[in-house]
Amino acid sequence: ARPKVGYFYVGQEVMPLLTDELYQETVGQLMVPPLLIPQTTMIDEAVTQLFMHDVGSLYVTDEQSGLLGVLSRKDLLRATINTTNTQTTPVAMIMTRMPNITTTTEETSVLHAGQRLIAHQVDSLPVVAIDGITVIGKITKSIIMRYFIEAGLHNQS
Amino acid sequence: ARPKVGYFYVGQEVMPLLTDELYQETVGQLMVPPLLIPQTTMIDEAVTQLFMHDVGSLYVTDEQSGLLGVLSRKDLLRATINTTNTQTTPVAMIMTRMPNITTTTEETSVLHAGQRLIAHQVDSLPVVAIDGITVIGKITKSIIMRYFIEAGLHNQS
Repeated sequence: ARPKVGYFYVGQEVMPLLTDELYQETVGQLMVPPLLIPQTTMIDEAVTQLFMHDVGSLYVTDEQSGLLGVLSRKDLLRATINTTNTQTTPVAMIMTRMPNITTTTEETSVLHAGQRLIAHQVDSLPVVAIDGITVIGKITKSIIMRYFIEAGLHNQS
Repeated sequence: ARPKVGYFYVGQEVMPLLTDELYQETVGQLMVPPLLIPQTTMIDEAVTQLFMHDVGSLYVTDEQSGLLGVLSRKDLLRATINTTNTQTTPVAMIMTRMPNITTTTEETSVLHAGQRLIAHQVDSLPVVAIDGITVIGKITKSIIMRYFIEAGLHNQS
Protein backbone atom coordinates (compact mmCIF):
# COMPACT_ATOMS: atom_id res chain seq x y z
CA ALA A 1 0.00 0.00 0.00
CA ARG A 2 3.00 2.28 -0.48
CA PRO A 3 2.54 4.91 -3.19
CA LYS A 4 4.80 4.26 -6.19
CA VAL A 5 5.51 7.88 -7.09
CA GLY A 6 6.25 10.68 -4.64
CA TYR A 7 8.87 12.10 -2.35
CA PHE A 8 10.57 9.78 0.09
CA TYR A 9 13.37 10.17 2.55
CA VAL A 10 15.98 8.04 0.87
CA GLY A 11 17.94 6.85 3.91
CA GLN A 12 15.04 4.82 5.25
CA GLU A 13 12.51 4.52 2.49
CA VAL A 14 14.20 3.62 -0.77
CA MET A 15 15.03 0.05 0.07
CA PRO A 16 11.47 -0.97 1.07
CA LEU A 17 10.25 0.61 -2.16
CA LEU A 18 12.86 -1.29 -4.13
CA THR A 19 11.75 -4.47 -2.39
CA ASP A 20 8.17 -3.85 -3.47
CA GLU A 21 8.96 -3.16 -7.10
CA LEU A 22 11.86 -5.41 -7.99
CA TYR A 23 11.33 -8.32 -5.62
CA GLN A 24 7.58 -8.81 -5.99
CA GLU A 25 7.83 -9.94 -9.62
CA THR A 26 6.15 -13.35 -9.84
CA VAL A 27 7.53 -16.73 -10.85
CA GLY A 28 4.76 -16.87 -13.49
CA GLN A 29 6.34 -13.88 -15.28
CA LEU A 30 9.85 -15.38 -15.25
CA MET A 31 9.38 -19.13 -15.65
CA VAL A 32 10.39 -21.03 -18.81
CA PRO A 33 8.96 -24.21 -20.39
CA PRO A 34 10.48 -27.28 -18.67
CA LEU A 35 11.97 -30.30 -20.41
CA LEU A 36 9.80 -33.30 -19.43
CA ILE A 37 10.81 -36.94 -19.85
CA PRO A 38 9.16 -40.26 -18.84
CA GLN A 39 10.76 -42.33 -16.07
CA THR A 40 11.57 -45.09 -18.56
CA THR A 41 14.14 -42.84 -20.30
CA MET A 42 17.65 -44.34 -20.15
CA ILE A 43 20.37 -42.29 -18.40
CA ASP A 44 22.45 -41.72 -21.54
CA GLU A 45 19.36 -40.54 -23.45
CA ALA A 46 18.58 -38.10 -20.59
CA VAL A 47 22.16 -36.72 -20.80
CA THR A 48 21.77 -36.31 -24.57
CA GLN A 49 18.49 -34.41 -24.03
CA LEU A 50 20.20 -32.17 -21.48
CA PHE A 51 22.87 -31.20 -24.02
CA MET A 52 20.50 -31.00 -27.00
CA HIS A 53 18.34 -28.45 -25.18
CA ASP A 54 21.26 -26.89 -23.29
CA VAL A 55 19.49 -27.02 -19.94
CA GLY A 56 20.67 -27.80 -16.41
CA SER A 57 17.81 -30.00 -15.25
CA LEU A 58 15.10 -32.37 -16.48
CA TYR A 59 11.74 -33.12 -14.89
CA VAL A 60 10.40 -36.65 -14.92
CA THR A 61 6.62 -36.79 -15.31
CA ASP A 62 3.76 -39.21 -15.95
CA GLU A 63 1.59 -38.92 -19.08
CA GLN A 64 -0.48 -36.12 -17.50
CA SER A 65 2.62 -33.98 -16.78
CA GLY A 66 2.35 -35.02 -13.12
CA LEU A 67 5.70 -34.57 -11.38
CA LEU A 68 7.45 -37.84 -10.49
CA GLY A 69 11.07 -36.79 -10.20
CA VAL A 70 13.85 -34.32 -10.92
CA LEU A 71 17.24 -34.89 -12.55
CA SER A 72 19.95 -32.26 -12.18
CA ARG A 73 23.27 -32.11 -14.04
CA LYS A 74 24.81 -33.14 -10.71
CA ASP A 75 22.54 -36.23 -10.43
CA LEU A 76 23.47 -37.24 -13.99
CA LEU A 77 27.20 -36.69 -13.38
CA ARG A 78 27.03 -38.84 -10.23
CA ALA A 79 25.23 -41.54 -12.19
CA THR A 80 27.54 -41.56 -15.21
CA ILE A 81 30.65 -41.88 -13.04
CA ASN A 82 29.07 -44.64 -10.89
CA THR A 83 26.69 -46.58 -13.11
CA THR A 84 28.04 -49.55 -15.02
CA ASN A 85 25.66 -49.23 -17.91
CA THR A 86 24.00 -45.88 -18.56
CA GLN A 87 22.45 -47.22 -21.77
CA THR A 88 20.25 -49.74 -19.95
CA THR A 89 19.56 -47.99 -16.63
CA PRO A 90 16.38 -45.87 -16.58
CA VAL A 91 16.33 -42.46 -14.89
CA ALA A 92 13.79 -43.83 -12.41
CA MET A 93 16.80 -45.48 -10.69
CA ILE A 94 18.66 -42.24 -10.02
CA MET A 95 16.19 -39.33 -9.95
CA THR A 96 15.18 -37.39 -6.86
CA ARG A 97 11.61 -38.50 -6.22
CA MET A 98 8.44 -36.87 -4.95
CA PRO A 99 7.79 -35.97 -2.14
CA ASN A 100 11.48 -35.04 -1.75
CA ILE A 101 11.23 -32.28 -4.37
CA THR A 102 10.82 -28.59 -3.62
CA THR A 103 8.33 -26.95 -5.96
CA THR A 104 6.93 -23.47 -6.39
CA THR A 105 3.86 -21.81 -7.94
CA GLU A 106 3.18 -19.08 -10.52
CA GLU A 107 2.02 -16.63 -7.85
CA THR A 108 5.19 -16.93 -5.74
CA SER A 109 7.43 -13.83 -5.72
CA VAL A 110 10.94 -13.96 -7.13
CA LEU A 111 12.15 -13.16 -3.61
CA HIS A 112 10.56 -16.25 -2.10
CA ALA A 113 11.50 -18.51 -5.01
CA GLY A 114 15.13 -17.35 -4.69
CA GLN A 115 15.04 -17.93 -0.95
CA ARG A 116 13.80 -21.47 -1.56
CA LEU A 117 16.50 -22.20 -4.18
CA ILE A 118 19.12 -21.13 -1.63
CA ALA A 119 17.58 -22.99 1.33
CA HIS A 120 17.24 -26.28 -0.56
CA GLN A 121 20.55 -25.92 -2.44
CA VAL A 122 19.03 -26.71 -5.82
CA ASP A 123 19.55 -25.07 -9.22
CA SER A 124 15.91 -25.10 -10.30
CA LEU A 125 12.36 -25.44 -8.99
CA PRO A 126 9.49 -27.05 -10.90
CA VAL A 127 6.52 -24.66 -11.11
CA VAL A 128 3.34 -26.64 -10.42
CA ALA A 129 -0.35 -25.87 -10.98
CA ILE A 130 -2.80 -25.45 -8.09
CA ASP A 131 -3.21 -29.24 -7.92
CA GLY A 132 0.39 -29.24 -6.58
CA ILE A 133 1.53 -31.90 -9.05
CA THR A 134 1.08 -30.79 -12.71
CA VAL A 135 4.30 -29.23 -14.01
CA ILE A 136 3.67 -25.95 -15.86
CA GLY A 137 7.14 -24.34 -15.84
CA LYS A 138 10.62 -24.07 -14.45
CA ILE A 139 12.44 -21.33 -12.53
CA THR A 140 16.22 -21.42 -12.10
CA LYS A 141 19.09 -19.59 -10.35
CA SER A 142 20.23 -18.46 -13.83
CA ILE A 143 16.84 -16.95 -14.67
CA ILE A 144 16.70 -15.07 -11.35
CA MET A 145 20.26 -13.78 -11.70
CA ARG A 146 19.54 -12.62 -15.27
CA TYR A 147 16.37 -10.89 -14.07
CA PHE A 148 18.26 -8.79 -11.50
CA ILE A 149 21.15 -8.02 -13.85
CA GLU A 150 18.83 -6.96 -16.67
CA ALA A 151 16.88 -4.74 -14.27
CA GLY A 152 20.19 -3.06 -13.39
CA LEU A 153 21.24 -2.64 -17.02
CA HIS A 154 17.83 -1.28 -17.99
CA ASN A 155 18.07 1.40 -15.32
CA GLN A 156 21.56 2.43 -16.32
CA SER A 157 20.47 3.35 -19.84
CA ALA B 1 28.59 11.34 -7.32
CA ARG B 2 24.95 10.94 -6.36
CA PRO B 3 24.32 11.71 -2.65
CA LYS B 4 23.33 8.58 -0.71
CA VAL B 5 20.85 10.19 1.67
CA GLY B 6 18.36 12.92 0.80
CA TYR B 7 15.05 13.59 -0.87
CA PHE B 8 14.50 12.30 -4.39
CA TYR B 9 11.60 12.29 -6.73
CA VAL B 10 10.80 8.62 -6.73
CA GLY B 11 9.33 8.23 -10.21
CA GLN B 12 12.59 8.98 -11.97
CA GLU B 13 15.32 8.86 -9.38
CA VAL B 14 14.94 5.74 -7.31
CA MET B 15 16.13 3.27 -9.91
CA PRO B 16 19.45 5.06 -10.65
CA LEU B 17 20.06 5.25 -6.90
CA LEU B 18 19.31 1.56 -6.57
CA THR B 19 21.73 0.89 -9.41
CA ASP B 20 24.46 2.81 -7.58
CA GLU B 21 23.99 1.11 -4.26
CA LEU B 22 23.06 -2.47 -5.04
CA TYR B 23 24.74 -3.00 -8.40
CA GLN B 24 28.10 -1.36 -7.71
CA GLU B 25 29.12 -3.98 -5.13
CA THR B 26 32.45 -5.42 -6.28
CA VAL B 27 33.39 -8.97 -7.22
CA GLY B 28 36.14 -8.72 -4.55
CA GLN B 29 33.47 -8.48 -1.84
CA LEU B 30 31.46 -11.44 -3.14
CA MET B 31 34.03 -13.91 -4.52
CA VAL B 32 34.81 -17.25 -2.83
CA PRO B 33 38.03 -19.32 -2.74
CA PRO B 34 38.28 -21.43 -5.92
CA LEU B 35 39.09 -25.13 -6.07
CA LEU B 36 42.38 -25.45 -7.99
CA ILE B 37 43.71 -28.69 -9.51
CA PRO B 38 46.75 -29.50 -11.69
CA GLN B 39 46.20 -30.50 -15.32
CA THR B 40 47.52 -34.00 -14.61
CA THR B 41 44.45 -34.76 -12.44
CA MET B 42 42.45 -37.68 -13.85
CA ILE B 43 38.82 -37.04 -14.82
CA ASP B 44 37.32 -39.33 -12.17
CA GLU B 45 39.42 -37.67 -9.47
CA ALA B 46 38.22 -34.23 -10.66
CA VAL B 47 34.60 -35.44 -10.40
CA THR B 48 35.27 -36.72 -6.88
CA GLN B 49 36.76 -33.33 -5.93
CA LEU B 50 33.68 -31.59 -7.36
CA PHE B 51 31.39 -33.67 -5.12
CA MET B 52 33.68 -33.58 -2.05
CA HIS B 53 33.67 -29.77 -2.09
CA ASP B 54 30.12 -29.49 -3.46
CA VAL B 55 31.07 -26.97 -6.14
CA GLY B 56 29.98 -26.51 -9.76
CA SER B 57 33.39 -25.82 -11.34
CA LEU B 58 37.11 -26.47 -10.94
CA TYR B 59 39.98 -24.29 -12.14
CA VAL B 60 43.08 -25.94 -13.57
CA THR B 61 46.27 -24.04 -12.70
CA ASP B 62 50.06 -24.36 -12.83
CA GLU B 63 52.15 -24.40 -9.64
CA GLN B 64 51.98 -20.60 -9.35
CA SER B 65 48.15 -20.58 -9.47
CA GLY B 66 48.35 -19.40 -13.07
CA LEU B 67 45.11 -20.18 -14.91
CA LEU B 68 45.41 -22.95 -17.52
CA GLY B 69 41.85 -24.17 -17.85
CA VAL B 70 38.32 -24.41 -16.50
CA LEU B 71 36.17 -27.49 -15.90
CA SER B 72 32.43 -27.11 -15.41
CA ARG B 73 29.95 -29.76 -14.27
CA LYS B 74 28.78 -29.76 -17.88
CA ASP B 75 32.32 -30.42 -19.22
CA LEU B 76 32.71 -33.31 -16.77
CA LEU B 77 29.30 -34.77 -17.64
CA ARG B 78 30.14 -34.64 -21.35
CA ALA B 79 33.46 -36.36 -20.64
CA THR B 80 32.08 -39.11 -18.38
CA ILE B 81 29.42 -40.07 -20.93
CA ASN B 82 31.93 -40.01 -23.83
CA THR B 83 35.32 -41.02 -22.44
CA THR B 84 36.20 -44.70 -22.41
CA ASN B 85 38.41 -44.49 -19.35
CA THR B 86 37.94 -41.60 -16.98
CA GLN B 87 40.47 -43.14 -14.57
CA THR B 88 43.39 -42.71 -16.97
CA THR B 89 42.42 -39.57 -18.93
CA PRO B 90 43.77 -36.30 -17.47
CA VAL B 91 41.58 -33.20 -17.29
CA ALA B 92 44.02 -31.49 -19.70
CA MET B 93 42.24 -33.50 -22.44
CA ILE B 94 38.79 -32.08 -21.76
CA MET B 95 39.12 -28.68 -20.07
CA THR B 96 38.33 -25.32 -21.69
CA ARG B 97 41.75 -23.74 -22.17
CA MET B 98 43.19 -20.22 -22.00
CA PRO B 99 42.75 -17.96 -23.91
CA ASN B 100 39.17 -19.23 -24.41
CA ILE B 101 38.22 -18.47 -20.79
CA THR B 102 36.32 -15.40 -19.64
CA THR B 103 37.78 -13.99 -16.42
CA THR B 104 36.99 -11.05 -14.16
CA THR B 105 38.79 -8.91 -11.55
CA GLU B 106 38.19 -7.91 -7.90
CA GLU B 107 37.30 -4.33 -8.88
CA THR B 108 34.58 -5.35 -11.36
CA SER B 109 31.02 -4.53 -10.28
CA VAL B 110 28.49 -7.28 -9.68
CA LEU B 111 26.48 -5.75 -12.55
CA HIS B 112 29.29 -6.23 -15.07
CA ALA B 113 30.27 -9.65 -13.76
CA GLY B 114 26.64 -10.76 -14.06
CA GLN B 115 26.44 -9.35 -17.57
CA ARG B 116 29.55 -11.32 -18.52
CA LEU B 117 28.19 -14.58 -17.03
CA ILE B 118 25.07 -14.15 -19.16
CA ALA B 119 26.90 -13.13 -22.36
CA HIS B 120 29.35 -16.04 -22.22
CA GLN B 121 26.77 -18.57 -20.96
CA VAL B 122 28.99 -19.85 -18.15
CA ASP B 123 28.18 -20.66 -14.52
CA SER B 124 31.31 -19.11 -13.01
CA LEU B 125 34.16 -16.68 -13.74
CA PRO B 126 37.70 -17.05 -12.38
CA VAL B 127 38.77 -13.85 -10.58
CA VAL B 128 42.35 -13.05 -11.61
CA ALA B 129 44.98 -10.69 -10.17
CA ILE B 130 46.25 -7.63 -12.06
CA ASP B 131 48.68 -9.87 -13.96
CA GLY B 132 45.58 -11.29 -15.68
CA ILE B 133 46.57 -14.89 -14.99
CA THR B 134 46.91 -15.62 -11.24
CA VAL B 135 43.63 -17.02 -9.88
CA ILE B 136 42.55 -15.34 -6.62
CA GLY B 137 38.85 -16.22 -6.44
CA LYS B 138 35.66 -17.37 -8.07
CA ILE B 139 32.33 -15.65 -8.72
CA THR B 140 29.26 -17.66 -9.76
CA LYS B 141 25.64 -17.23 -10.86
CA SER B 142 24.62 -18.76 -7.51
CA ILE B 143 26.63 -16.21 -5.51
CA ILE B 144 25.14 -13.31 -7.48
CA MET B 145 21.60 -14.63 -7.15
CA ARG B 146 22.10 -15.12 -3.39
CA TYR B 147 23.48 -11.57 -3.10
CA PHE B 148 20.35 -10.03 -4.63
CA ILE B 149 17.95 -12.27 -2.69
CA GLU B 150 19.69 -11.58 0.63
CA ALA B 151 19.60 -7.83 -0.09
CA GLY B 152 15.84 -8.17 -0.58
CA LEU B 153 15.34 -10.22 2.58
CA HIS B 154 17.48 -7.83 4.63
CA ASN B 155 15.37 -4.90 3.53
CA GLN B 156 12.11 -6.66 4.30
CA SER B 157 13.02 -7.11 7.96
